[in-house]
Amino acid sequence: MPDLPLDSEATAVADAKHEPDDYFKYFQEQPGSEPGTLSIDPDAPPSQIALIDYNSHQLAQTSEMEAESFSSYFHADSVSWLDVQGLGSEDILLTIGELCHLHPLLLEDVVNVPQRPKVQDYNEHLLVVMRMVMPHPDHDGFRSEQISFVLGDRYLLTFQEEPLDDCFTAVRQRICENRGKVRQLGPDYLTYLLVDAALDGYFPVLEAYGDRLGDLEEEVTHNPSRHTIKKIYQLRRELLALRRALWPQRSAINILSSDRSPLIDRDVQIYFRDCYDRLIQLLDLVETYRELAASLMDVYMSAMSNKVNEIVSLLTIVSSIFIPLTFIVGVYGMNFEQMPGLSWRWGYWACCGVMLLVAGSMLTFFWRRGWFAVFSFVNRD
Amino acid sequence: MPDLPLDSEATAVADAKHEPDDYFKYFQEQPGSEPGTLSIDPDAPPSQIALIDYNSHQLAQTSEMEAESFSSYFHADSVSWLDVQGLGSEDILLTIGELCHLHPLLLEDVVNVPQRPKVQDYNEHLLVVMRMVMPHPDHDGFRSEQISFVLGDRYLLTFQEEPLDDCFTAVRQRICENRGKVRQLGPDYLTYLLVDAALDGYFPVLEAYGDRLGDLEEEVTHNPSRHTIKKIYQLRRELLALRRALWPQRSAINILSSDRSPLIDRDVQIYFRDCYDRLIQLLDLVETYRELAASLMDVYMSAMSNKVNEIVSLLTIVSSIFIPLTFIVGVYGMNFEQMPGLSWRWGYWACCGVMLLVAGSMLTFFWRRGWFAVFSFVNRD
Amino acid sequence: MPDLPLDSEATAVADAKHEPDDYFKYFQEQPGSEPGTLSIDPDAPPSQIALIDYNSHQLAQTSEMEAESFSSYFHADSVSWLDVQGLGSEDILLTIGELCHLHPLLLEDVVNVPQRPKVQDYNEHLLVVMRMVMPHPDHDGFRSEQISFVLGDRYLLTFQEEPLDDCFTAVRQRICENRGKVRQLGPDYLTYLLVDAALDGYFPVLEAYGDRLGDLEEEVTHNPSRHTIKKIYQLRRELLALRRALWPQRSAINILSSDRSPLIDRDVQIYFRDCYDRLIQLLDLVETYRELAASLMDVYMSAMSNKVNEIVSLLTIVSSIFIPLTFIVGVYGMNFEQMPGLSWRWGYWACCGVMLLVAGSMLTFFWRRGWFAVFSFVNRD
Amino acid sequence: MPDLPLDSEATAVADAKHEPDDYFKYFQEQPGSEPGTLSIDPDAPPSQIALIDYNSHQLAQTSEMEAESFSSYFHADSVSWLDVQGLGSEDILLTIGELCHLHPLLLEDVVNVPQRPKVQDYNEHLLVVMRMVMPHPDHDGFRSEQISFVLGDRYLLTFQEEPLDDCFTAVRQRICENRGKVRQLGPDYLTYLLVDAALDGYFPVLEAYGDRLGDLEEEVTHNPSRHTIKKIYQLRRELLALRRALWPQRSAINILSSDRSPLIDRDVQIYFRDCYDRLIQLLDLVETYRELAASLMDVYMSAMSNKVNEIVSLLTIVSSIFIPLTFIVGVYGMNFEQMPGLSWRWGYWACCGVMLLVAGSMLTFFWRRGWFAVFSFVNRD
Amino acid sequence: MPDLPLDSEATAVADAKHEPDDYFKYFQEQPGSEPGTLSIDPDAPPSQIALIDYNSHQLAQTSEMEAESFSSYFHADSVSWLDVQGLGSEDILLTIGELCHLHPLLLEDVVNVPQRPKVQDYNEHLLVVMRMVMPHPDHDGFRSEQISFVLGDRYLLTFQEEPLDDCFTAVRQRICENRGKVRQLGPDYLTYLLVDAALDGYFPVLEAYGDRLGDLEEEVTHNPSRHTIKKIYQLRRELLALRRALWPQRSAINILSSDRSPLIDRDVQIYFRDCYDRLIQLLDLVETYRELAASLMDVYMSAMSNKVNEIVSLLTIVSSIFIPLTFIVGVYGMNFEQMPGLSWRWGYWACCGVMLLVAGSMLTFFWRRGWFAVFSFVNRD
Repeated sequence: MPDLPLDSEATAVADAKHEPDDYFKYFQEQPGSEPGTLSIDPDAPPSQIALIDYNSHQLAQTSEMEAESFSSYFHADSVSWLDVQGLGSEDILLTIGELCHLHPLLLEDVVNVPQRPKVQDYNEHLLVVMRMVMPHPDHDGFRSEQISFVLGDRYLLTFQEEPLDDCFTAVRQRICENRGKVRQLGPDYLTYLLVDAALDGYFPVLEAYGDRLGDLEEEVTHNPSRHTIKKIYQLRRELLALRRALWPQRSAINILSSDRSPLIDRDVQIYFRDCYDRLIQLLDLVETYRELAASLMDVYMSAMSNKVNEIVSLLTIVSSIFIPLTFIVGVYGMNFEQMPGLSWRWGYWACCGVMLLVAGSMLTFFWRRGWFAVFSFVNRD
Repeated sequence: MPDLPLDSEATAVADAKHEPDDYFKYFQEQPGSEPGTLSIDPDAPPSQIALIDYNSHQLAQTSEMEAESFSSYFHADSVSWLDVQGLGSEDILLTIGELCHLHPLLLEDVVNVPQRPKVQDYNEHLLVVMRMVMPHPDHDGFRSEQISFVLGDRYLLTFQEEPLDDCFTAVRQRICENRGKVRQLGPDYLTYLLVDAALDGYFPVLEAYGDRLGDLEEEVTHNPSRHTIKKIYQLRRELLALRRALWPQRSAINILSSDRSPLIDRDVQIYFRDCYDRLIQLLDLVETYRELAASLMDVYMSAMSNKVNEIVSLLTIVSSIFIPLTFIVGVYGMNFEQMPGLSWRWGYWACCGVMLLVAGSMLTFFWRRGWFAVFSFVNRD
Repeated sequence: MPDLPLDSEATAVADAKHEPDDYFKYFQEQPGSEPGTLSIDPDAPPSQIALIDYNSHQLAQTSEMEAESFSSYFHADSVSWLDVQGLGSEDILLTIGELCHLHPLLLEDVVNVPQRPKVQDYNEHLLVVMRMVMPHPDHDGFRSEQISFVLGDRYLLTFQEEPLDDCFTAVRQRICENRGKVRQLGPDYLTYLLVDAALDGYFPVLEAYGDRLGDLEEEVTHNPSRHTIKKIYQLRRELLALRRALWPQRSAINILSSDRSPLIDRDVQIYFRDCYDRLIQLLDLVETYRELAASLMDVYMSAMSNKVNEIVSLLTIVSSIFIPLTFIVGVYGMNFEQMPGLSWRWGYWACCGVMLLVAGSMLTFFWRRGWFAVFSFVNRD
Repeated sequence: MPDLPLDSEATAVADAKHEPDDYFKYFQEQPGSEPGTLSIDPDAPPSQIALIDYNSHQLAQTSEMEAESFSSYFHADSVSWLDVQGLGSEDILLTIGELCHLHPLLLEDVVNVPQRPKVQDYNEHLLVVMRMVMPHPDHDGFRSEQISFVLGDRYLLTFQEEPLDDCFTAVRQRICENRGKVRQLGPDYLTYLLVDAALDGYFPVLEAYGDRLGDLEEEVTHNPSRHTIKKIYQLRRELLALRRALWPQRSAINILSSDRSPLIDRDVQIYFRDCYDRLIQLLDLVETYRELAASLMDVYMSAMSNKVNEIVSLLTIVSSIFIPLTFIVGVYGMNFEQMPGLSWRWGYWACCGVMLLVAGSMLTFFWRRGWFAVFSFVNRD
Repeated sequence: MPDLPLDSEATAVADAKHEPDDYFKYFQEQPGSEPGTLSIDPDAPPSQIALIDYNSHQLAQTSEMEAESFSSYFHADSVSWLDVQGLGSEDILLTIGELCHLHPLLLEDVVNVPQRPKVQDYNEHLLVVMRMVMPHPDHDGFRSEQISFVLGDRYLLTFQEEPLDDCFTAVRQRICENRGKVRQLGPDYLTYLLVDAALDGYFPVLEAYGDRLGDLEEEVTHNPSRHTIKKIYQLRRELLALRRALWPQRSAINILSSDRSPLIDRDVQIYFRDCYDRLIQLLDLVETYRELAASLMDVYMSAMSNKVNEIVSLLTIVSSIFIPLTFIVGVYGMNFEQMPGLSWRWGYWACCGVMLLVAGSMLTFFWRRGWFAVFSFVNRD
């Protein structure tokens, strides 16, 4: 029976719905809490610190260091990159905040995730809040994680929500192997490399959405079911979530690529302009998919309307042929004592002939109007 | 009977509709009234005054003071916060207006509630009209209240519609306990703290709407009824009302965080920028919910269309099988004297066989096209 | 019969449609006419002139004066307000134009009504074209009238389409009784008072639309009929017309409140800013109503779809139960000579039993799926 | 038969569709053609030249002059207006281009019609491309024609597509009769007069659309047919075309009325501001009509939905009453030998009574729910 | 049978869907790749180089030259145009990059196709990325190709994806034959000529879409089938893709025509302004087509709704006439022993008469309401 697989699909769809609000959540402050209060999520993994200190001719790399010893790397002739993975250790985060003289509101935005992506200038520091996405391990959607960059004069701090085998590894290797220009340039270029790496994650996610959209186009056109509309709705929902992640990043990167901050070199701005171009491309794709998904809804509605059309056609054909015939046989089932034809020898055959004539002309009527298509097409493709 | 609970739901919905225009009301001036006329609502609670006067090393707190004695607290070395709860006492309001030299139009905006949220610069004073929301005690929606801030050089006046156990308590405690920087800074920072506290109230309200939206998604997908559409409409209505409350606050806070008013310190502007970020997040959520609610309407329409589809399928199956059979039995009910087969011994059984054949091929036709799904699915999930 | 009242409603709707283009008309110039040509509408009432000349310590008031004697009131130490009611007397209008040196295009805009609301600076004069609305005496809608203000250095000219007992009376009384600040200030403040009075007229009109919208919500939810959609359409049409009246006034008042014209004092600009706020509120309400009316259309469509649903359900229930039964009784109406059971003593009762069984299981099927709700709900609420 | 007139309507609609792309065409360059190439349409009428040379005290008028002799009219103390009707003579156009030193791209825009309306500054010349409309002679729609103005220091060139008895006649007469200020002012004021005359043509066209919209409102409400939707679509199509003609003219005229070109006097700018106002009014009307036409589509859909509703109601009433009755009579048509009641004397009457009861209660059920309205309303109004 | 052709259409539509994502693809960087990395597509054709070096009195032309020898043509008194066809040879591309000192990001944008159209200023060079379209050889849609222009002080580099017999040939001939001003002017004018030639390709593609839209209008109005909606959807999809290609080019060309880059002469800017005008026209057409396609969807939905309407009408007519008649004949088929009329001589004829009366009044009812139109119109036009 063709509808059995639908049940399991329904289950899959239902599963995918268990955490829908995931996509549309922002950090919610405790009412009346002090500005700058850090809200450590008890489930957050403890913070781990990895440091790379480099210039064009030397390199120092430490993982799992103590936060306090960070300041010893502050000197003008090298770039220090402190990568904090996991936002669960309040003491470590506060220590870093103190050592680097971070504004309380800056630290709050870094720790109280999720925040809306943005760039904010705190004079001494530039805060860049980005959002990276990756395919969700359990279902078709995606999950997202906040990355915060705090760009100082000679150092860069990065904060990630979870210690993942992440997109930063390639950049770390490039520094160690002294590939490209990264060792010649400052922390602003390093920021560019990491932002660019974070953006790379959007492309495969978007490609998967392109594929899902293609599958839905196929399904709507050839086999629309009751679950199709839910899938379209789910797709629109997730594309909306993607757009919400990308849109604020666009204006953030635009600030980096066009405003004059003393922390970003003019030559590095050209690189951020390239990031901006890629973000525009991503947003363009998301908007295109959203528009296609919206008009897919229309196509679905018309497919449903067609189906009703065809079912009703079948009903009309059957009824229009047999109801008149039933009337005719009913006439000769009447018990009048005096009815012409009943005792005529060929009466029965004449009656059958009339009925064939009626049925035939009905059939011709429907045939010439092409209604029989209903028998071959209903539910076949 | 499964529809009985719907009735009580219907009642609930009807109840929720009793005061719908609540959300979309502005203060309506008496035609031809003098500009600056105060329209005291006779139902408004009488005004109560609470004053806190503080600087970094001393604190004076008075509740239920006389309006006239307020001016004695005006001195340059302390910050005075006068909190007026209830807008029912014209004399008190006028006294305050005179003591602080408030512009008549300013006082009008404070008293003639509800006004659209805004920031207006009256040279000596900065008027900030905000709107706070809280869950409605009687139904699913929210209710809202105007809070007006009048920021002077060394004092802050706040006006609330009703003397509630409100979101300002936490701030008052923070002043008394000298927590954070509030005692070191001026009335502009106090304004920030109170505006921020007012914004805190939006998050739980919005979270409740997220939950309602999730419930409606569930309902539309699994059990759409005639009342679903009314609930979606009601939800869209309330989200529209929320958006109307938030949208003007956004531009108001933007003015506070970016324009140069001599009454707001540059360091405090950074805090208002944080408020602005949170407002953007709130608006972003509301817009997202509105978009989801709109496409939920489409899903509902297609669910309805599916239901018609399935009901008509059932009708077509039953009719298409039995109408031809009824014709056949009608044929052998005719009273022709000469009909073949009637007197044949196996005539009846042959006739039954033909009918079984007809019914069987019909059933096969429908089965192969998966129409029987209708029997298991209609109205079940 | 419950539909009889609908007929009279239909008549009411039809009546309301007699002058639909009223709302969407602009003055249409004669092709090839000279710029500055006055097109006096022959049906326009003859112009009546009323003058008030005042300063803080004296007042002169004349009604039905001659246009020519107006110039005698031009002196620097008083404010002259010339109110022209009715635009039917070309000579009077031309005389005023000459006496005040009005630009021909300015006079054209004043006389050739209706014009789009606007503010235009003619160096010596500031032309303010506004549109006031009032409930229509004959039907639910509104009617509108143009008011033009020509603000000069020491005088104000106002032009109204018809000599109505209008919203200006309150202002005139205030001048006579020397209430408020009007006698201390110049013609710019007087302009503000009159513009503000004209805006007052929008609130009751908008409130009536809010009520109509509420009624329609009720009607769509509880008793949608074929006329509901026409009422929604009519409502949307009128709200569109209201929006068209308000939208250009918004930018006009914005010019008055923010641009620096030497004819408007800085202190009076604060008052116009208040006007602007009220216009924003009005526009906000209109947009909200428009959005609600649009989604009401969706609710109506789904209510209709529900109704089809329920009607078809009833048809399906009746058909599905009786068509099989009719087949069974048809079987035993066949005239085969050899049919089992016909001569059996309990044959008839057995047959009835089978039919009861069939009908019962059908009923159970429908009952368990809640279809019987159709009998209680169709058309009841 | 009421549908016969529809056929002729259908023909009318089909006729109106013969040249639909007329509205949405732009000039299409030959691929790889030299910039500035003139593409003379072989069907274009030959160019005719009419010249008026005037100042405040003298006037010279020549029609059908030679292009070469034009330069003899160039002198600083008079204004020369050269009106070229028809764009079919390449030599004439090139001669004018040479004599006036027109930029090749300017001449291209004038000759290669249709172009998008625009204003372009070529230092020595100002090119103004406008589009005038007039009712179409063959059907309900409109047709449009490009008019190009080339404004030089002391002369104005105008180019029209066809030598029509056009809207310029009134202006020409006004110059000859020395009415108004045209003879006192320069070619910029003449440009204003002609642009204004071209705009005059839009008002009757738009009024006709207002009437068509009113007719369609009537038709949708009282007698919607299958052709109504096509008419609405056609109307939307033509309004879209009108909007496309008006929209770029708006920004063009805005440039003329606000930018400082040395070729346009400041006093004349005030007149162009008046043109701009009228264009805004026209656009406002077109947008309003478009919005109304869009919501008319919704009304049509709901009218259709109502019709299905009523047809299905009729089917349900008839079926629900007669199908049970047919079952009852079927029961007593069964041939069981032992059936109670058949031989009872009042059996037949009792059976009839039962049937009347069933039919009566059904009728009451439908009556009380107001379904009988269907018999009086279907297709009547 | 009228539906057979539909099958082949369905196949055609299915074929056209094989490469749908073609339209919505951007270059996707390898995660973590070095900025400036060239990703040579292994399927890309090898690069071929053609050089034209010219000034007003001499010309040198070389095809299939070596990249290294390019620099020998760099001298100030001639313009060098290097045209690279095919992006498959990394060494050639890198050599060119080195010789001309191209920024790594610039070369990346040229090679890693497809990129979003844009203009970027790299101080020494101006990068212009355009997208040209041509009709697709295999189906109704279009295919597109990136062209990149790198404008230097005295040279122009162009990069095409494939070595096609392209739109540049006409420009090359114009240079060789010294037609027009190209030999007198610099590489900026050459850039204009090539950009203009690339834009020429859009017009025939858009014209084809205009035709398809016209065909669909015809189809929706006269013969809507299940495949119509898919065709409309496909059309909207492709118009969306066209819009995405044109939109960014618009802002790119706007930069060329209005910003002051030292590489583009002020006289040449006037030509780019002409390009910009043409782009606006193209975008205008695409937007118009998109709007028409969207409202065509509405027309289709209403055509479908009409069809259901007519099918249900037919069903209702047949059922309403024969179901009551069947009941009547059933009555006289009852076996009551005592039934009036059965033994009456004219009973049968009286019964027939009654039935004729019933049928006749039913027919009259439907006739007068014009329902018989259904027999002539269903599926005919």
